[in-house]
Amino acid sequence: MKTTTHSDLPQTAARSAHQAAAEALCGAELHARHLPRFEAAQAACRDRGHWSAFVDHPELYPSADEARRTGRAAHQAQLGQPFELAQPGTCAWLGEESSPYTGQPLGIVYPQADADALFTAARAAMPDWARAEVNTRIGVLMEVVDVLYRRHLFELAFAVMHTAGQSFNMAFTGSGVNALDRAIEALVHAHQALQNVPSQARWARPFGTAEICLEKTYRKVPRGVAVCFACATFPTWNAWPSMMASLATGNAVIVKPHPACVLPMAISVRVFRQVLQAAGFDPDLVTLCLDSVAEPQGQRLVQHPATAIVDFTGSARFGQWVERNAGPALVFTETSGCNTVVLAEADDLDAALRSLATSLCLFSAQMCTSPQNIYLPRDGVLTPQGRVSVQQVGERLVHFIDQIAGDPRRAAMMLATLQSPQTLALLEALSREGARRGQVLRQATPYVHPDYPQARTASPLLIQLKRSERDLYGEERFGPVAFLIECESAEAALQQACADVTELGGLTAFVYAQDPGFIAQAEEAYAMAGAQLTINLTGPMPLNFAAAYSDYHVTGLNPAGNACLTDLAFVSARFRIAQVRRPMPTQRPPGGAA
Amino acid sequence: MKTTTHSDLPQTAARSAHQAAAEALCGAELHARHLPRFEAAQAACRDRGHWSAFVDHPELYPSADEARRTGRAAHQAQLGQPFELAQPGTCAWLGEESSPYTGQPLGIVYPQADADALFTAARAAMPDWARAEVNTRIGVLMEVVDVLYRRHLFELAFAVMHTAGQSFNMAFTGSGVNALDRAIEALVHAHQALQNVPSQARWARPFGTAEICLEKTYRKVPRGVAVCFACATFPTWNAWPSMMASLATGNAVIVKPHPACVLPMAISVRVFRQVLQAAGFDPDLVTLCLDSVAEPQGQRLVQHPATAIVDFTGSARFGQWVERNAGPALVFTETSGCNTVVLAEADDLDAALRSLATSLCLFSAQMCTSPQNIYLPRDGVLTPQGRVSVQQVGERLVHFIDQIAGDPRRAAMMLATLQSPQTLALLEALSREGARRGQVLRQATPYVHPDYPQARTASPLLIQLKRSERDLYGEERFGPVAFLIECESAEAALQQACADVTELGGLTAFVYAQDPGFIAQAEEAYAMAGAQLTINLTGPMPLNFAAAYSDYHVTGLNPAGNACLTDLAFVSARFRIAQVRRPMPTQRPPGGAA
Repeated sequence: MKTTTHSDLPQTAARSAHQAAAEALCGAELHARHLPRFEAAQAACRDRGHWSAFVDHPELYPSADEARRTGRAAHQAQLGQPFELAQPGTCAWLGEESSPYTGQPLGIVYPQADADALFTAARAAMPDWARAEVNTRIGVLMEVVDVLYRRHLFELAFAVMHTAGQSFNMAFTGSGVNALDRAIEALVHAHQALQNVPSQARWARPFGTAEICLEKTYRKVPRGVAVCFACATFPTWNAWPSMMASLATGNAVIVKPHPACVLPMAISVRVFRQVLQAAGFDPDLVTLCLDSVAEPQGQRLVQHPATAIVDFTGSARFGQWVERNAGPALVFTETSGCNTVVLAEADDLDAALRSLATSLCLFSAQMCTSPQNIYLPRDGVLTPQGRVSVQQVGERLVHFIDQIAGDPRRAAMMLATLQSPQTLALLEALSREGARRGQVLRQATPYVHPDYPQARTASPLLIQLKRSERDLYGEERFGPVAFLIECESAEAALQQACADVTELGGLTAFVYAQDPGFIAQAEEAYAMAGAQLTINLTGPMPLNFAAAYSDYHVTGLNPAGNACLTDLAFVSARFRIAQVRRPMPTQRPPGGAA
Repeated sequence: MKTTTHSDLPQTAARSAHQAAAEALCGAELHARHLPRFEAAQAACRDRGHWSAFVDHPELYPSADEARRTGRAAHQAQLGQPFELAQPGTCAWLGEESSPYTGQPLGIVYPQADADALFTAARAAMPDWARAEVNTRIGVLMEVVDVLYRRHLFELAFAVMHTAGQSFNMAFTGSGVNALDRAIEALVHAHQALQNVPSQARWARPFGTAEICLEKTYRKVPRGVAVCFACATFPTWNAWPSMMASLATGNAVIVKPHPACVLPMAISVRVFRQVLQAAGFDPDLVTLCLDSVAEPQGQRLVQHPATAIVDFTGSARFGQWVERNAGPALVFTETSGCNTVVLAEADDLDAALRSLATSLCLFSAQMCTSPQNIYLPRDGVLTPQGRVSVQQVGERLVHFIDQIAGDPRRAAMMLATLQSPQTLALLEALSREGARRGQVLRQATPYVHPDYPQARTASPLLIQLKRSERDLYGEERFGPVAFLIECESAEAALQQACADVTELGGLTAFVYAQDPGFIAQAEEAYAMAGAQLTINLTGPMPLNFAAAYSDYHVTGLNPAGNACLTDLAFVSARFRIAQVRRPMPTQRPPGGAA
C-alpha cells in the first residue's frame, strides 16, 4: 500500500488565470493524477487497517502556520459578506448563522434559490455527467477531495468551528481529514459497484438450427437528483460521503444545509462546482438549497417529484417523516439513538471511567456516536478489588469529568461549545426532571473558554436513575448529558441496553466486562440490536472515534438509520442498469424457424 | 470458463436411508462439491456471454425418457393428496388449484399455517444459519439448486404446466433450468457482496505518545425474515433468485405462493427444507404460507412486525400497496408495465413482424417481458420497398399470428394456456372496447389443444388504436392482447412509448429502426425510461427471451418495479454490518494522556 505523502501538495492561496487554465484537465488526466491515492484507499478498504490519505493534525500540515493564517484570513473575509455561488434560481439572500464561540452573527448571506430552478438545472446537468466514464467521474471527484484538502482545509475548519461549534482541532480532523477519508471510501465503494457491471458483452447461442449473436451494452443510469441534508453539528462527515456516492454514480446533488450551519457546506458546494466546471462539466450538478428555521423547505424537497435519492442526517423526528414520505426515492438516514454503555466488570475501573468521561465531554456529546446511557448492576461494578458501588462509580466519573471541565484549556479542547442555545434549555429541564426522578450527580455547569469568553458552553450533566425511569433516559437527549442507570444485575443491564437500542435506536455501544461468556452474549445481543460495539477500551483513543477505511457506521438494524456510508448497500442502488441488445454484424441471416 | 457437465449427475428416483445419511454433508463439503459450477457461474456473471449450468431442452437431459416418466409419476402421485411439508403451525389444509389444461381441480391440499408460528420458527432457525460461514451457506444453497435439477426438474415442469399453464417445454426451460441459472446468479452476487466485507482486521494507530491496537471483527447480520410472494404464471423464475438472495445473506424466507399456483413452490420449499436439514440446519428457514383467493393473507404478512424483507411479484395494484406499506422492510418488486415496441423502419419487415407475432403468442403473452403496445407512424413503416401502411402492417401481423394459432401443434407449444379464467373475460371486454374506440384486427379466438381438448386457450387479440386512446392501451392488460398504436411520426411513436414506460412502467422494449440518429435517440430515451431495449432483433430467438448471466431484469427506473434479481443492489442490503472492536493483547498499557 502506497501512502500518498502530502509534501508535493502545495497550499496555494490564489491561482493565476494561467494556472487555472492549466488545470482545466479532462477527467481521465485527473483520474491518472489521483490513482495512487485511490488505489491505496481501495487497499485500505479491503484490509481495514489504519490508513489515511492525509495528515491527522493541523501542525503536521505542510507550511502549517501559513496555511492556518491563510485559512483564517479566508474565513474572516467571508464574514459579513454575501457568499457568491453563481448558481441558478437565486430569488433572495439569506443567512442566520451565529458563532457559538462569539455569540455574534456571522453576517454572511447566501443565495436562496427557487427549488424548482435547482431541480431543473440539476436534471439538465446530468446527461453529460452520466455519460462520462466511471473513471472520469472518480477522477473529478478525487480532485474535489484534493482541492478541499490543499486549498480549503483550514478555511473549512474555521467555518465548522464558528457554526457547528467544534474545537478547531476537531473541526480540522473530524470534520476535515476524517470526513475527506470517508468521502474517498464512498468513492471506492461506488467504483466497485459500478465496475461490477461490465459495459458490454457478446452473447451467442443456438436456437434450433440458427445461432443468435447479440451485442449487448449495459448502461449505468443514475437514479436522478439527490437531496442531501447536512446537520448542524457535524455537517461534512455525513454529507461528503453521501454527495460522493450520488455523484460517482452519475447523479446530481442538491445540498440542504441546516440553517444554523451553512458555511461549511457552502464552501464545499463552491469547490464541487469549481472543479466540475474546470473539468468541463456543468457545475449545476451540485447546488445549495437554503432555507430558514422559520420557513423550512425540507418537506418540499423530499417530496419534490424530481427527488430520486434522499440522504438525511438530523433529528429522529424529521428523519422518521423522511423515511415514511420520501418513497419512491431511495432513502439513507442517520438520525439519533441511545448510545449505550454496559459497565459490568473492569480490570481497571478508573481507566474505564476516565475513557467514559472523555467521551462524554468530547464536543459536549454532540456527536452521533457519543455515549449517553450507562447501565450498571445496582450492587456495583466488579473489579479485582471487589465490587465498587454505584455511588462510588458515579463519584469517580464525576471526578474525571471535573478534571476536564475544571481546566479551561482542556475544556476548550475537549468540550468546545454547544451548537444550539436550545441545548442549554434542554439541560436545565433534564436537571429538574432528573432531580425529581433520581439523583443529579453532576450539574451541567458552563466553563469559561480561555479565548472566547462569550462562548456557549456546558460540561456534562450526570443523572443517576432507576431502570424503571425509561421514559427519561429512553431517548436521545442531544448534548452533554449522561444517565447512570441501575439495573438488577449485569445481565439485566445488557438486556435493557440492547432492548433500548433495538426499540429506540443506537449507533455505538460500549461494554466493560471480563467474563468471556458475558462478553460473547454481549457481542451477540448488540449485533442483533445493530449497534457497533467496543469492548473494554481504555486509554487515549476517544471511545467513539470512528476510523476511516476501518469502522463501519450505521448498521440499519435499528431505528437510528440505515446510512452505513461505506458499504455496497450505500452505493449500489444509486444507479440502475439499462441494457441494449442488438444483432451483431456477424449474425447469420435469420431462418424462417420462428 | 469450465462448463459443468451433467453426465455425472444421476437422476435418482428414490434414495435409501444409507444414501441419505451419506449425504448429510456439512456445508463446507457441499461448497467444495459445487465449487466448479459456482466458479463457472462467477465467470459467466463477469463476462455475460452465453453459459448455463444445465441442459436447455428436456430431450438433452440425462436418461430423458426415464426422467420424464419418473417426473410425471411423481406429479400424478401428488394429485388428490395432502402435500406433506412437516412445517410448524399447521392449522388447516387448503388447496384450490385447477389445471388450465384439464379444467379439473388438482385436489392437492397443503398445510395452512398460522403466520405467527411461521415467523417464530423462522426467527428461531436464523441464528445458526447466520453464524455459518458464507461458503457453507453457498454450498448448501448450490446443493438445493442441484437437487432441484437432478431429482425434481420434470416433476416441477409438470407442476408448472398444470398450475401456471405453461407448455411443458417452457416449464422445463423457463421455469426450470433458466430459473435455476437465475438462482445461481443471485448466489454469485450475494457471495460478492458478502465477501466485500472482511471478517476481521487489525488496526493500530498512535494517539499522542501511546499506540492503540484494536482487533476488529465484522459480522454480517441478516436483516430478518423475508416474505417472498410468488406469482401465478411464472412462480419459480422470480421466487428462486429472491429466496437465494435472502438465504445466502443469512435470512429466513416465508414463501407466499399465489393460491392458484402453489404446487411448484410447495415442491421447492420441500426441497429447500430437506437439503437444509440434511446439512444440519433448521428446515424452518424456509416455509410456505398459504392463503386463499377468498381470504388473502398478503397484507398481514407484509405488515407483520417480524417482516424484514419483501420480495413481491404480482399485480401492479397490490405491488404499489406493498411498496407504500412494507416499510421499514426492504422491498423488491416486479409488478407490471406496458412493454413497448416502436416500429419505425425495417430492413425485413416480415421478419420483424414474424418475431413480434412469436413474442405475442409466447405463453399467450402472460410473461412480464411480453410486448403489448406497438407504436408506429400513421403514414406507415419504412422499408427498402417503400412505406408499408399501418393497415398492411396489421394484416401481416395477423397473418403471422394466424400461422401459429392456426396450427394446433404449434399453438400448443407456443400459446400454451391461459392461467386464469379472468383473462377470457378481460379479452372479451377489451374486444368490445377496442371495436368502439378503434379497430379489432384480430379476435382472441381459442384453439383446440391437441392433447387437452378442455384446455383454456386464446390466441392474441389485436386492436388498432389512435395514439389518443391512451386510457385503453396505457396499462398492462395481462394476457394475449396487443395494440397497434398510430402516431404522427416515428419520433412521436418513440416519444409516446417512452412516456408510457416512464409513467406507467415497462420492463422490455423493442425498436425497429435503421437511422443511426433515431436509434441513438431511442437508446437514450429508453435508458432514461428504464426499459431493457432490444433493437432490430429478428429470427428464432423469442424477442423477450432473457438470458441468465447476461441480461439484467427490472431496472427500477419506472413503476414496473425494482427487482433486478441479479445485481448488487438486489443483495447488498439484505444483510448489514455489525462490528466489534477490542484492544489487542499486544496493546501497550494505556497512558494517562486522556
